[in-house]
Amino acid sequence: MTVRFAAVGLDHSHIFGMIAGLVGAGAELVGLASDDPEAAVCKSVRAMQPDVPWFDDAADLYADPTIQLIATAAVPIRRGEIAIAALEAGKDVLTDKPGVVTYEHLDAIKKLVAEKGRIWDVVFSERFEVKSAIKAGELVHAGRIGRVVQTLGLGPHRERDKDHLAGGSGRPDWFYDISTYGGILTDIASHQISQFLWLTDSASGDVVSATVANFNHPDHPDFQDFGDVTLSSATAQGYVRVDWFTPQGLPTWGDGRLVIVGTEGYIELRKYVDIEGRPGTNHLFVADQNGTEYIDCSGVELTFFPDVVGDVENRTNTAVDQEHNYEVSRLGILAQEKATVRKLY
Amino acid sequence: MTVRFAAVGLDHSHIFGMIAGLVGAGAELVGLASDDPEAAVCKSVRAMQPDVPWFDDAADLYADPTIQLIATAAVPIRRGEIAIAALEAGKDVLTDKPGVVTYEHLDAIKKLVAEKGRIWDVVFSERFEVKSAIKAGELVHAGRIGRVVQTLGLGPHRERDKDHLAGGSGRPDWFYDISTYGGILTDIASHQISQFLWLTDSASGDVVSATVANFNHPDHPDFQDFGDVTLSSATAQGYVRVDWFTPQGLPTWGDGRLVIVGTEGYIELRKYVDIEGRPGTNHLFVADQNGTEYIDCSGVELTFFPDVVGDVENRTNTAVDQEHNYEVSRLGILAQEKATVRKLY
Repeated sequence: MTVRFAAVGLDHSHIFGMIAGLVGAGAELVGLASDDPEAAVCKSVRAMQPDVPWFDDAADLYADPTIQLIATAAVPIRRGEIAIAALEAGKDVLTDKPGVVTYEHLDAIKKLVAEKGRIWDVVFSERFEVKSAIKAGELVHAGRIGRVVQTLGLGPHRERDKDHLAGGSGRPDWFYDISTYGGILTDIASHQISQFLWLTDSASGDVVSATVANFNHPDHPDFQDFGDVTLSSATAQGYVRVDWFTPQGLPTWGDGRLVIVGTEGYIELRKYVDIEGRPGTNHLFVADQNGTEYIDCSGVELTFFPDVVGDVENRTNTAVDQEHNYEVSRLGILAQEKATVRKLY
Repeated sequence: MTVRFAAVGLDHSHIFGMIAGLVGAGAELVGLASDDPEAAVCKSVRAMQPDVPWFDDAADLYADPTIQLIATAAVPIRRGEIAIAALEAGKDVLTDKPGVVTYEHLDAIKKLVAEKGRIWDVVFSERFEVKSAIKAGELVHAGRIGRVVQTLGLGPHRERDKDHLAGGSGRPDWFYDISTYGGILTDIASHQISQFLWLTDSASGDVVSATVANFNHPDHPDFQDFGDVTLSSATAQGYVRVDWFTPQGLPTWGDGRLVIVGTEGYIELRKYVDIEGRPGTNHLFVADQNGTEYIDCSGVELTFFPDVVGDVENRTNTAVDQEHNYEVSRLGILAQEKATVRKLY
């Protein structure tokens, strides 16, 4: 009864967390394949999984009827193709975000999911794998701050980090090539777009305006080191800022924040660091009509990967709503498409 | 040699701080006048200044050649008219923000300032009277975080507060009437617009998009309890969110924040409260390439009112650049004009 899965497309270090999450939830990793066997992440996955067979051709994995799920953290532009091939072969798919970077891939995936009765889930890890985000959802959906009128998400990221594989000696070439990663809004803003829809209980949204910029990367003129987008839904507004300007002095990769404004109070998350404040991660602050409260969310249970594995086993839809995956992806591509592009270095 | 000033238009409680600031800087308050003598603020000013003569007609104050400066915190729509009358009479003007709510008033003021060689200063108090903001300006202009690429200003406000005159038993009627206060962006976002231009060293800016909304005030359908605006300048981007949703449980009127992102680091201000954190106000956090630092800004010197009084005496322009006052005002009106209007209660 164990869910058997293969990892196809081992380019982004997010694959480590995806494999760990699925294996931790009881799934079995039975095969590896990737277009670029020389990629640092790919080599590292193989070194960490010496007993898992390598396949030169991913088609052999798609053709294996005992494999139920394909996980991918390929170069973003390849994720859509991998998902399409996997869905066509009747597999479920778990993809790193962004799951797709073009409308064409998104439409093909929607069609295949419907036709084949399969699952296409996107790992919006800044929600699913962040305990304070899960707690914020509990508080919001319990009405603690009234009706949510705005979410504001800040997602600064570190470009290079000597202690971290993905940024070890800089990033791989595809990281700087918009044709392969899809743009900063499609890519990293997808986390915050997901949180906007989720916390405002919005099935769909729209892009009010967006800007992407290259403020300080003259050596990579097409790179986008800054992006922001203003969102709206039937009941609320959203704002997202993402950037690659986390300085080396911050003790983690980014000072991710989420502020949720409701009619009866607000919540602030300091997800990964409380700068010059409390140690650790997952800090939640709430102010309501009665007072203020700090909540240490380190004890919150994360259920995303167990839910995904359960959905694969039981043909359910508990981890994340399928339509949510589509709408976040659509809005990310739309934001990128509508964005004013600035270069200023 | 003492600067003599009159206070005309005593509707908003900001007049208390303006009078205190000017008197504290050595100016002498020599007259009071206001259209609505029954306004709570007006009665309170008169009670606090029993020795300062009241004038039924402000024209008598404008006509007094010994008065150099007119200070006003009238209902916003009236501030332009008061400034125009004062400038025509050869007075300098110090006005609460927003200084104007229409382009017509702004243009007339520009013309008169030039013709008469007078000063028209706007009290952007969330910058001038906030020690952490002054400190942030010092750090930014000393290059601590490299080139600034974005400012993000959050200005939540409390609508009602039992302990505060202005919100004692609710707000006066004009507070809810857009024709008198000019809209939430023209009004309270002017603070953050000023900080955007100042901290990005921008002489001018533009509005990318803006939204104003009435999310939760069905009894006042024209009121705007939420507003946001995305800004751009030649070198940077800006985002401002303002709202009237500060809950009663917060121990102050608003959790005002400013995040300044630079190419080499970032600064966060928690101006009025560090929710569930350090006591007091004016908390500054900085992360740069070398580490993180907390700076308690409570010892920073505020010089705005002394500078204004000095400018009136010496015909200088040290407190704030005249052109900055114009550009902030123009952008506030432009944001309001361009804003998508939502009603959702």
